[in-house]
Amino acid sequence: MERERRKVVAVIGSGSATEEEPGYQAASIIGRSLVDNGFRVMTGGLHGVMEGAFIGAKSSKRYREGDTIAVLPGIDPDDANMHSDIVIPTGLGIGRNMIVTNADAIIAIGGGSGTLSEIAFSWQKGKTIVALDIPGWSGELGGRALDDRRPDDVVIKAKDPHHAVELMMSEL
Amino acid sequence: MERERRKVVAVIGSGSATEEEPGYQAASIIGRSLVDNGFRVMTGGLHGVMEGAFIGAKSSKRYREGDTIAVLPGIDPDDANMHSDIVIPTGLGIGRNMIVTNADAIIAIGGGSGTLSEIAFSWQKGKTIVALDIPGWSGELGGRALDDRRPDDVVIKAKDPHHAVELMMSEL
Amino acid sequence: MERERRKVVAVIGSGSATEEEPGYQAASIIGRSLVDNGFRVMTGGLHGVMEGAFIGAKSSKRYREGDTIAVLPGIDPDDANMHSDIVIPTGLGIGRNMIVTNADAIIAIGGGSGTLSEIAFSWQKGKTIVALDIPGWSGELGGRALDDRRPDDVVIKAKDPHHAVELMMSEL
Amino acid sequence: MERERRKVVAVIGSGSATEEEPGYQAASIIGRSLVDNGFRVMTGGLHGVMEGAFIGAKSSKRYREGDTIAVLPGIDPDDANMHSDIVIPTGLGIGRNMIVTNADAIIAIGGGSGTLSEIAFSWQKGKTIVALDIPGWSGELGGRALDDRRPDDVVIKAKDPHHAVELMMSEL
Repeated sequence: MERERRKVVAVIGSGSATEEEPGYQAASIIGRSLVDNGFRVMTGGLHGVMEGAFIGAKSSKRYREGDTIAVLPGIDPDDANMHSDIVIPTGLGIGRNMIVTNADAIIAIGGGSGTLSEIAFSWQKGKTIVALDIPGWSGELGGRALDDRRPDDVVIKAKDPHHAVELMMSEL
Repeated sequence: MERERRKVVAVIGSGSATEEEPGYQAASIIGRSLVDNGFRVMTGGLHGVMEGAFIGAKSSKRYREGDTIAVLPGIDPDDANMHSDIVIPTGLGIGRNMIVTNADAIIAIGGGSGTLSEIAFSWQKGKTIVALDIPGWSGELGGRALDDRRPDDVVIKAKDPHHAVELMMSEL
Repeated sequence: MERERRKVVAVIGSGSATEEEPGYQAASIIGRSLVDNGFRVMTGGLHGVMEGAFIGAKSSKRYREGDTIAVLPGIDPDDANMHSDIVIPTGLGIGRNMIVTNADAIIAIGGGSGTLSEIAFSWQKGKTIVALDIPGWSGELGGRALDDRRPDDVVIKAKDPHHAVELMMSEL
Repeated sequence: MERERRKVVAVIGSGSATEEEPGYQAASIIGRSLVDNGFRVMTGGLHGVMEGAFIGAKSSKRYREGDTIAVLPGIDPDDANMHSDIVIPTGLGIGRNMIVTNADAIIAIGGGSGTLSEIAFSWQKGKTIVALDIPGWSGELGGRALDDRRPDDVVIKAKDPHHAVELMMSEL
């Protein structure tokens, strides 16, 4: 009998996005849609997009405690935003980006240089990456190959949050 | 209103302990007792003590899916034992030991050099460490200070599995 | 009396560039120029641009054994290219990219997703980054800000290898 | 033609040992003897034993600039002690212990929990470990096997600093 592990999708994006910004709202829609579809949601555990994704996850009717996973830069679990169910303090600083990119798939929402490093690591690891077409690195890299190590493969461009989850699911 | 994050306790010990060995059985009792008391259980996600702890956790009446967290050495989530609910592939090899020791508290069960490095890291980070008094590094270090950076503090020695959980809880 | 530590400059770029490619040749010119100017050269220790930079370093009249530093992904020192004087095996895999970006300054030469993650980490850490204007991520990011965390700062675009070293030196 | 890479020996021990303590003096003798015999010396780059080893290295007649390698916890190269020729800032905190243990061989001098984690990692990686027989973890572990993964192997016990280098050399 096969264990059915629930898959984990990382949502990455700017930690400074405010509630009014499209990235934050997109993260919330994506978080909810992921849990609606039986996934867990992993982020870097801080604010902005990371918080939006968790709030969305918790608003799903299928949400169960344990569905939001925060992979923190520091060693203090209390640094996690208050919507984090599972807290993994790493002590690796921005190096935790690397760990986040080991999720089953990655959805990128806008983002600055932290998100850029996460997308680059995900690409190196051969992961499915879906990038929302909004300002920031997700918008810039959607539809592109980052180098030639993944022939015929690209960072998948999604026109809106629901589309992002659909595209990701079609790849897993 | 305060978020009530459920605390995470790391159970560490030999990955090669078989079901017949006392360490495996102790891990199972400890895993169940931890979930009985509202904790989640984190391990390195492989076999031996790591598996025993998760099987125990799942046997608790209070177990909910999401209570067992596997922090893996590699990047393939399928390396986790089949009792792992949450899988965090790190790609850090034996360096993941470091991350495991960022749990809220640590319970050590026997163990070889991997467990020894985890106990040493936990000590450096000021964590509560309870060590079961059985053969292996937990038995050897229980009751001792590893150096003088934690005055009046020791690795707490526990005479049996239930005692280990009680002692840990009295420190948190 | 002040210690005068010689500064270390990381040269990053594609590990698959062949001797005939412009990136390899640029790396060689940059490596020599760096040692001519009293710097040590650090790379990821493998092939392509990493090798070219070390060969260049060794061709400088001011070269002294110890001027080439290889920060390897694995734990086997013999993985380093044969021009590596100092070998630091990390066991961190592609995560060693992070460590390379802690050099005093970074010069990027072309490059794929590995180089991209290195540029992104360097930016997060506030390092001086000079990017050679040739095909690859260095060419694409030269002259740009990666996000708004470094106001008025950009990845510095260099039109040729000598220019890259001059620009880097003017920033240190 | 074979490259002849000079081997690197890590010297590990307490960062708080003062000049008057036997560990500091032993580190100095070992550092000098290592360079006398053509090795480079690697440490965690801070004070105590790490400093003593570098001062000793520099007192060797065969010393050449570049023989002392500091693998730092933080990202600021200026944290290294002033006898560090090559500085590798890692940003990994106490996790850099892991990297230090990838040297060609390890000599342990006294030490607390940091040294203990380094010895445990070195053992897991199959490295030659020589432990000086003085108070601290090196004294306690010399002559012992840390677990059964290295049959017939032990942490090699050395009665004095010169003996430590001789024993290490006989194993490489």
